[in-house]
Amino acid sequence: MEKKVEQVIKKFTESVVNVLGTMAMTEAKPSKAYVKKDNKAKGDISGVIGFSSPSGKSKGTMSVTFTQQSVLGIINSMLGEELKEITDEVADAVGELTNMICGQARKGLAELGMTYEGAIPSVITGQNHSIRHVSSAAILAIPFDTPFGPIIVEVCFS
Amino acid sequence: MEKKVEQVIKKFTESVVNVLGTMAMTEAKPSKAYVKKDNKAKGDISGVIGFSSPSGKSKGTMSVTFTQQSVLGIINSMLGEELKEITDEVADAVGELTNMICGQARKGLAELGMTYEGAIPSVITGQNHSIRHVSSAAILAIPFDTPFGPIIVEVCFS
Repeated sequence: MEKKVEQVIKKFTESVVNVLGTMAMTEAKPSKAYVKKDNKAKGDISGVIGFSSPSGKSKGTMSVTFTQQSVLGIINSMLGEELKEITDEVADAVGELTNMICGQARKGLAELGMTYEGAIPSVITGQNHSIRHVSSAAILAIPFDTPFGPIIVEVCFS
Repeated sequence: MEKKVEQVIKKFTESVVNVLGTMAMTEAKPSKAYVKKDNKAKGDISGVIGFSSPSGKSKGTMSVTFTQQSVLGIINSMLGEELKEITDEVADAVGELTNMICGQARKGLAELGMTYEGAIPSVITGQNHSIRHVSSAAILAIPFDTPFGPIIVEVCFS
């Protein structure tokens, strides 16, 4: 894997670990990231957020996909609640986490000379949905394990 | 409704009508757009794409949500195929349409003095999923009717 790709993965990985640790008191353990040309993440709720460079020459998208079990564990820990199902409150919290993970990762990318502005996060709820980023560029997938179950972060650039 | 909001709705509406007309030979008839603070579109496949101003001060997201029936009609017309279910090919075509609708709408917004760069589109597939844009700003919803069934376009800015 190229050095630049490794650095990008590191920035996103650090951001996920930091944001989940500080906001949701949840330890996220990253597994080995992989690059796929044709990838689809599957889960029960996903946050997605786009970003683009000020010139518009470079753009990207990041998604964070949870299972019902992992999202309820993480969001209940974050909000101090005992929610039993995916409510609008859970979706909004996923949007906030997505925004924060992307924001912190973008700060890290800026240190590598890659400047991006973020868009507004959207949250998709639907049992066993799949999410697919439509780009000819490679998609970076970073799986994490938490005490509540898996999450998967995907990032793509063009 | 404010004049500016009406102008923005007009740009997105024109873009949907043009892109579906030229790319998929499909007539899309807009219904009255509405503004909701707390909105969720429901469908079987959605394309979503973020955008942000070069300064990062303004940002937004657009989604296009289809039912299984409306997407198959539109994409089969676009590709000259007779696909019976939502495949990766359908998802990629939805990503392309989403990108084109957003791109043409952004050109229209630039005429209003609002310049945005677009991100990479993501496509979510999942029966009866819902999509929610996480922003304190209002969400503009524009429903369309096509010969194949309904589609709904949502736009939000901050």
